Amino acid sequence: MINLTTTAPTFAADFTTLVNARREADADVARDVRAIIARVRDEGDAAVHAYTKSFDRHDLDATGWQIDREEWRAAYDGLAPDLRAALQLAAQRIATYHEKQKPQGTDSTDANGIRTGARWNAIEHAGIYIPGGRAAYPSSVLMNAIPAKVAGVDRIVMVTPTPDGEVNPLVLAAAHIVGVDELWRIGGAQAIAALAYGTDRLRPVDVITGPGNAWVAEAKRQLYGVVGIDMVAGPSEIVVVADGENRADWIAADLLSQSEHDPTSQSILFTDSAAFADAVAAEVDAQIETLATSKVARAAWDANGAIIVVRTLEEALPLVDRLAAEHLELACDDPQALFDKVRHAGSVFMGRHTPEAIGDYVAGPNHVLPTGRRARFASGLSVLDFMKRTSFLQLGPQGLAAIGPAAVALAEAEGLPAHARSVALRLP
Amino acid sequence: MINLTTTAPTFAADFTTLVNARREADADVARDVRAIIARVRDEGDAAVHAYTKSFDRHDLDATGWQIDREEWRAAYDGLAPDLRAALQLAAQRIATYHEKQKPQGTDSTDANGIRTGARWNAIEHAGIYIPGGRAAYPSSVLMNAIPAKVAGVDRIVMVTPTPDGEVNPLVLAAAHIVGVDELWRIGGAQAIAALAYGTDRLRPVDVITGPGNAWVAEAKRQLYGVVGIDMVAGPSEIVVVADGENRADWIAADLLSQSEHDPTSQSILFTDSAAFADAVAAEVDAQIETLATSKVARAAWDANGAIIVVRTLEEALPLVDRLAAEHLELACDDPQALFDKVRHAGSVFMGRHTPEAIGDYVAGPNHVLPTGRRARFASGLSVLDFMKRTSFLQLGPQGLAAIGPAAVALAEAEGLPAHARSVALRLP
Repeated sequence: MINLTTTAPTFAADFTTLVNARREADADVARDVRAIIARVRDEGDAAVHAYTKSFDRHDLDATGWQIDREEWRAAYDGLAPDLRAALQLAAQRIATYHEKQKPQGTDSTDANGIRTGARWNAIEHAGIYIPGGRAAYPSSVLMNAIPAKVAGVDRIVMVTPTPDGEVNPLVLAAAHIVGVDELWRIGGAQAIAALAYGTDRLRPVDVITGPGNAWVAEAKRQLYGVVGIDMVAGPSEIVVVADGENRADWIAADLLSQSEHDPTSQSILFTDSAAFADAVAAEVDAQIETLATSKVARAAWDANGAIIVVRTLEEALPLVDRLAAEHLELACDDPQALFDKVRHAGSVFMGRHTPEAIGDYVAGPNHVLPTGRRARFASGLSVLDFMKRTSFLQLGPQGLAAIGPAAVALAEAEGLPAHARSVALRLP
Repeated sequence: MINLTTTAPTFAADFTTLVNARREADADVARDVRAIIARVRDEGDAAVHAYTKSFDRHDLDATGWQIDREEWRAAYDGLAPDLRAALQLAAQRIATYHEKQKPQGTDSTDANGIRTGARWNAIEHAGIYIPGGRAAYPSSVLMNAIPAKVAGVDRIVMVTPTPDGEVNPLVLAAAHIVGVDELWRIGGAQAIAALAYGTDRLRPVDVITGPGNAWVAEAKRQLYGVVGIDMVAGPSEIVVVADGENRADWIAADLLSQSEHDPTSQSILFTDSAAFADAVAAEVDAQIETLATSKVARAAWDANGAIIVVRTLEEALPLVDRLAAEHLELACDDPQALFDKVRHAGSVFMGRHTPEAIGDYVAGPNHVLPTGRRARFASGLSVLDFMKRTSFLQLGPQGLAAIGPAAVALAEAEGLPAHARSVALRLP
C-alpha cells in the first residue's frame, strides 16, 4: 500500500505513476491465444475437446458437452431458501433496471417529404462466458444474461469450464432463473473461439460477453470484429472518496471487497482527514487477518492499495477523473455535489450506506463495468450491447430534387462518378 | 459477377459460399501493424517522423506536423460556391439527424428510497482518421466529426496523411466547417498508434474513428481497449432488392456506386424478374465503360458482383439477413412492408427515389456503417460512440435494510467475505 498526500512536493509524479501502473496481460498471453484461436478455427470440436482435456482435465465425450436443463432445475431446487430468494430478488431488480435501457427508435419526415430514422433490433445469438473455479459467480450469470434477455435475444448460449468435470450448482441455478438456452462445459480461449467461429456442435454467436481470466479477455479482444464483445476487461478497481465522519471499519471493508477479488485488484482511498486515513489503514490490516480471502486481499492491498490525503474532497475529483475507476464510492453527506463534478467512472455509489458490494448483487445496475481507466470512453454492460441500430432513409421525387444536386456536387468532387450518376439519373 | 437463382438445385450451397467469402486483411498486415505500433509506443515522435518519411515521402519537420487553421479557412474560401453550399447543407442535415441520438439519463427512487440511475457524459478527446490520396473524402470528415461535436467532445483531433506533402483542400474545408481542434499530417498505423498512446507532440485521445486502409483498420483493431474505436471496418457492400418495375439504368448505377469504391467492394442485386436481371447486367456493363473509375468498378463487379433471381421479393429477405449488408436498398412500391421483415442491415434506403449515394452525403444518417456482415451485431457511427454512461446508486439505511441481507447471502455463497462484511457492518 502506498501513502500519498497532495501537499507533498513529489505528489504529481507519484500520482502519475499510480495512474499509469499497468496491471494487465502480457505478450505471451496474446501469442498463446492466437494459437488456440487458430486451432479451434481449423479443427473445430476436435480442438475444443483436446484443449478441455488438457486445461480442464476432463473428457467432454464422457462428461457431456452440454449440461442439461434438468440439472439446472435440480441445482435451483437444491438451493437453500434464503439463497434462492436472494437470487430471485437480484434477478428481478436487475431486470427492472435494465428495462429502462431499451432504446427508442426515431422516424421523422421533413417538409420535403424526406423521411429519416433509426430502428433498434436485438441481435440473434449471444454467448455468455462464466468462469469456472474460484471466480464462478452466479451474479455474473444474472448480470450478463438478463440484459440479453431484456434486449430480446433469440438464443443465449452460456459456456463455463468445469475443471475436473465439477459443475458449480450456483451457476446452474442462475442459468435456470434467467432461462438461458444452452449451457456448455467449455472454457478458456478455446470456448471464446468456438462461440465466435462455431463448430459442428456449437452454432456461432454474434456477441460474446462475460468475465474471464487473461486468456479469455485476450481471446475476446482478438476476436472483436468477428463478433461483438462487451469490453476489454482488466483487473478490477475501487476508488473511495470519504470524509473523516465515516466509520473506518466500513470503509476498510469496502476497500477490501475489491482487494479480495484478485492479486491485481486495486483499492484507493481519498480522504481529507489524515487521522481517518490512519484509522482506515489500521482497520484494513486488522480485517485482512480475519478474511478467508486474506492471502489474495493482502497481496492486492500491498501491491496496489493506496491512501491519498487531500486538502478537501473537491481536490480529489480531478484525480478521480484521471483514474476513471470502475467503481467510485462517494462517502459523505452530500455525495451529489461531488458526483456533479465527476466525469469518468464506471459506476458511482453515493452516500454512507451504499457499499460497492450492494451494486455487485442486488441493486439493479450492471456490475460488468469498464476497468483500467476505460471509463474514459466505455460504459458498463447494458441492453444496448445486445442490440444494434439500423438507420433508414426514404425520399420521393420532391425530396431528391431538394437535396440531390448537393449530393451530385459532392460525389463529383470526391471523384466518384457512379455515385453522382445514381442520383443525377433520378433528378428531373 | 455471378448469377444465381433460388430455384437452382445448388442455390443453397452457392449462396453460402457468397455469404462466407472473405474479403479482408491477412496475417501479414497484422504482423506489420504490430511492429509499427510497438515502435511508435517506444520511440514516439521519432517513429512517426520516420514512418511518414518512408510511407508518405515527406519530412514532417519541413512540411510541418500540423496544418494551421488559416489553411483550412483558405481552402474553404477557395471552394466553388456550389460545393461550399453542398458541404454546408450536408453538415447542417447531419447535425440535425445526430442531435436526435443524444441519450437521456435516468434517475429514479423506489419505495425503499433506493435511488438508481445512469448519466451520460461526452468523452474528452476524439481522434478522427481521414485517409489521404484516392479516398480523401470531405464527407468522411463531416460524418465522423459532427457526431463528436454533437456529443460535446472537448477536443477533436483530425489526422490525415499528405502523401508527398500534398494536402486535399476539400478535406481542409470540411475541417473548417465542422470546427475540429487540431489537424495533423500523419496517417497509417503510425497515426493510430500516436493517437492512442500519445507522443511528446500529440496528446493522446480516448476514441478513434474514421475510415482507412487495411493497415489503419488493423491498427484500430489492435489498439481497441487502449482506446475506444468505431468498428472494425472492412470492404463496403450494397444489397439492392428491386422488382421489375424499376429502371435498369438507375439500379445499375446504384450497384456501380459501390463497386467504384474499391476492388474488394461487393454489389448484390435481388430481383423477382429474370428479364430485369438481364437488363441490369447489360446496363452495368454499358455504364462501367463510361466511368472514370471503370478500372476499380470492373474489378469489383467481376470479382464480387452478384445478381440473384428470386421467386418473390419476400423470398429475398432471409437471404438479405444472412448477408447483413452495410447498405440495403428496397426499390419497390411498398418498401416499408419489406423493411418490417429485415433484421440485419447497417442502413436501409427505401423506395425508387432513394439511391444509396444520397445517404453518403447529405441526407443526415451516418455513412460510417458496419461492413462484412457485422450489421448482425454492430451499428453505424453515432453520438453514442463519443459518449459513455456512468451508472449510479444511492441507498439510505432503509434501502440497505431491505436488500442488504440478500447481498450478504450471495457474497457469502460466492466466497467473498469482505463483500459480505461491507454490507453486513452497515445493517442494523
